[in-house]
Amino acid sequence: MNRNPQLNKHGELQHLLTTEGLPVSILLHILDTAESFAGVTEREVKKIPLLRGKSVFNLFFESSTRTRTTFEIAAKRLSADVINLNIAVSAQSKGETLLDTVNNLSAMHADMFVVRHSQSGAAHMMASHVRPDIHVINAGDGRHAHPTQALLDMFTIRRYKKDFHNLRVAIVGDILHSRVARSQIHALTTLGVPEVRVIAPKTLLPSRVERLGVHIYHDITQGMKDIDVIIMLRLQNERMLGASLPSTEEYFKYYGLTQEKLTLAKQDAIVMHPGPMNRGVEIDSAVADGKQSVILPQVTFGIAVRMAVMSILAGN
Amino acid sequence: MNRNPQLNKHGELQHLLTTEGLPVSILLHILDTAESFAGVTEREVKKIPLLRGKSVFNLFFESSTRTRTTFEIAAKRLSADVINLNIAVSAQSKGETLLDTVNNLSAMHADMFVVRHSQSGAAHMMASHVRPDIHVINAGDGRHAHPTQALLDMFTIRRYKKDFHNLRVAIVGDILHSRVARSQIHALTTLGVPEVRVIAPKTLLPSRVERLGVHIYHDITQGMKDIDVIIMLRLQNERMLGASLPSTEEYFKYYGLTQEKLTLAKQDAIVMHPGPMNRGVEIDSAVADGKQSVILPQVTFGIAVRMAVMSILAGN
Amino acid sequence: MNRNPQLNKHGELQHLLTTEGLPVSILLHILDTAESFAGVTEREVKKIPLLRGKSVFNLFFESSTRTRTTFEIAAKRLSADVINLNIAVSAQSKGETLLDTVNNLSAMHADMFVVRHSQSGAAHMMASHVRPDIHVINAGDGRHAHPTQALLDMFTIRRYKKDFHNLRVAIVGDILHSRVARSQIHALTTLGVPEVRVIAPKTLLPSRVERLGVHIYHDITQGMKDIDVIIMLRLQNERMLGASLPSTEEYFKYYGLTQEKLTLAKQDAIVMHPGPMNRGVEIDSAVADGKQSVILPQVTFGIAVRMAVMSILAGN
Repeated sequence: MNRNPQLNKHGELQHLLTTEGLPVSILLHILDTAESFAGVTEREVKKIPLLRGKSVFNLFFESSTRTRTTFEIAAKRLSADVINLNIAVSAQSKGETLLDTVNNLSAMHADMFVVRHSQSGAAHMMASHVRPDIHVINAGDGRHAHPTQALLDMFTIRRYKKDFHNLRVAIVGDILHSRVARSQIHALTTLGVPEVRVIAPKTLLPSRVERLGVHIYHDITQGMKDIDVIIMLRLQNERMLGASLPSTEEYFKYYGLTQEKLTLAKQDAIVMHPGPMNRGVEIDSAVADGKQSVILPQVTFGIAVRMAVMSILAGN
Repeated sequence: MNRNPQLNKHGELQHLLTTEGLPVSILLHILDTAESFAGVTEREVKKIPLLRGKSVFNLFFESSTRTRTTFEIAAKRLSADVINLNIAVSAQSKGETLLDTVNNLSAMHADMFVVRHSQSGAAHMMASHVRPDIHVINAGDGRHAHPTQALLDMFTIRRYKKDFHNLRVAIVGDILHSRVARSQIHALTTLGVPEVRVIAPKTLLPSRVERLGVHIYHDITQGMKDIDVIIMLRLQNERMLGASLPSTEEYFKYYGLTQEKLTLAKQDAIVMHPGPMNRGVEIDSAVADGKQSVILPQVTFGIAVRMAVMSILAGN
Repeated sequence: MNRNPQLNKHGELQHLLTTEGLPVSILLHILDTAESFAGVTEREVKKIPLLRGKSVFNLFFESSTRTRTTFEIAAKRLSADVINLNIAVSAQSKGETLLDTVNNLSAMHADMFVVRHSQSGAAHMMASHVRPDIHVINAGDGRHAHPTQALLDMFTIRRYKKDFHNLRVAIVGDILHSRVARSQIHALTTLGVPEVRVIAPKTLLPSRVERLGVHIYHDITQGMKDIDVIIMLRLQNERMLGASLPSTEEYFKYYGLTQEKLTLAKQDAIVMHPGPMNRGVEIDSAVADGKQSVILPQVTFGIAVRMAVMSILAGN
């Protein structure tokens, strides 16, 4: 029996809600499809008519320049009509329930919903209520998941490291509040990365994080050893205050990635960050702009990966 | 002499400002054209090039997710370029007059203005000042009119009841503040509905509403008798306070549509609502989601009706 | 050696940042190209595929209905995909630097940035950091420059006066705070206008404005003599207070353009204004709506001029 709400009865991707529980075959299918689009998104390429006549709704209950924009570009490259909705300012303020909003938008011949919401589970809720011909893509829900970010990270890692099977990957920083970290850990594990480390102070780790199959380090100088891929997380200042960290300066001293700490990793290690960066808090500018940084390629690959997800969903 | 500002000198639709005074032939032409688009808006249909190269400006001086979005989708299905303008935040705040804003936007090769404004008469004012090759569609002005909402309601009624000539229609709730109710009453009357009832407390009825040719009921249990179509109106909480209603609970008790009250109407009566709904205030969830509700089909038909209006205007 | 950051190594336009230092050949090429589009932007014309598959980002750090909309229309007429970004509300509020925002958007396969920013030099900064295949258009930066406004003004002048070489042009009002005036003066001078006058109270003139090659008048009745073209500037009320002007009434009395003052200019003089107008402050309604006003044609020509700039940049 199929209990995964992301898959249809044929085991195909119906919604993309989380990387957790996603079969390796689907993860690889997305990455391979994205490879074919990565060429298309180079200069001088014409638009692709795969989503022509389809309506993609960008439902952003939280604002996000980067994520909304990359989905919009990806959808337009596929020739979709894109409708941007900042729900916070309209229907919700008139007291309509989220479910009524979803039902109404569904009734408007939507083909795809891209959803960003501050509440964990919002995308799942929507997916369980839309008509069977509508696809939901989670663009970040609360602390829960951000699967397209994780997928573009996997795409980036594969581009630079070719294979997942002999890598050591370290995720550094505020694991506790990070939907990105959760989605990365699930994807890395499914794709066969043998060692995933989380490096963070105790106060920024979820309880029982070891259940996700990760190795825990509190000391970054130890955690960096033999590492191939370093993923720095954004420190959300407003959240840090409650985490008994004395200051951002203190945080930078112990966990901020500097050239000095980077030398502890493998010589050809790559540095990633989902953005937006706090320079001088979790990452030093010399590293962010340095030759091991693949932070801007991540953004570029995000277009191809989102095109892949949308075209696969539309085809299923 | 033609004094109807909505019609050109050939008696064709030049602007859609109100359903009041609109000839039955034009109303039916819109509904028939919408039927042809209702098929088109089903799955897997390609875009229609009727408005290709035309610019549709969505001028929303008041925000409205649902109305703005359906116009945007309808225009894009017709291959128009859509420009969304939230005027409140820009030129108006620089002290420019509405007329200057209109003149400037007209000078930008606009082909169609879709206007939502808090002031009654705003769309009329714009229509009387734009160049002759620009069409204005009223998407709601103050308490005055909301003609495309009324038209999609007529479309819905005809879909479910086939004919207007032997129907009893009840409009329930805050008639006083409702531009939707005004536009519905004019359309229903013109289309030959023999009996239109308004059901509301005295404080939510306009003075001399009987002049519109409607029957007045204050008691919903009496007003429901032999009814074919029930249109529930949204109760705007902030307005209710000034209407000497003690509470939303009280309102729900007397005027909220429950399954119990619904049984007083005809067995095959349909329930409509323009949205967004206040569940538990003017309508009970069991009714809103029940099998007599056609609230979501209304939204879907709204796309076809707006496509019809825009394509008719563009052709005239 | 080429030190003009707007030109590529072949001396072609790479970015449009300011009219200052722009060769007359490039100014004329833009105006001539705009002539070819001015026909295209008439009724019933199909879209032009010159920017098909290209992504134009409207980056508005300051809101502006008119400028953003004309760029959006121009880009869509050229078949580009347009991404509107109101940066103020998103990434910037998360503490990301402007440069990081630019780098991230560049990584999203942007082809062109249209930038409005409150800080002088913002567009230059962006142009100096983007990849070589990205073009930056300054849509207004601080008090510095607004080149497309100046170009559409030149287009308007040439349309009505045929030739620049025997004109007297007066720019009236708040020269001090006006990026529009700066860009106009540079363009007029380069295009060979023999006499450019600025008419303003001392408190609204930049120090050493005579270095720009303009003639200074404090008395509008003298400055109007023998004038062919009058460009009125918007008086920004909030700025006027610091300029030791007692009131807008006083300003209107001495510098507001009335029919009476207009008669002092040549009989066939044209009146221009970049908008939005303060009627009764810098311009009387009788003049703004009078037969010598070309204020609305300016707006219309703005589409063709922006199409010209974008298509020239895309071709280089």
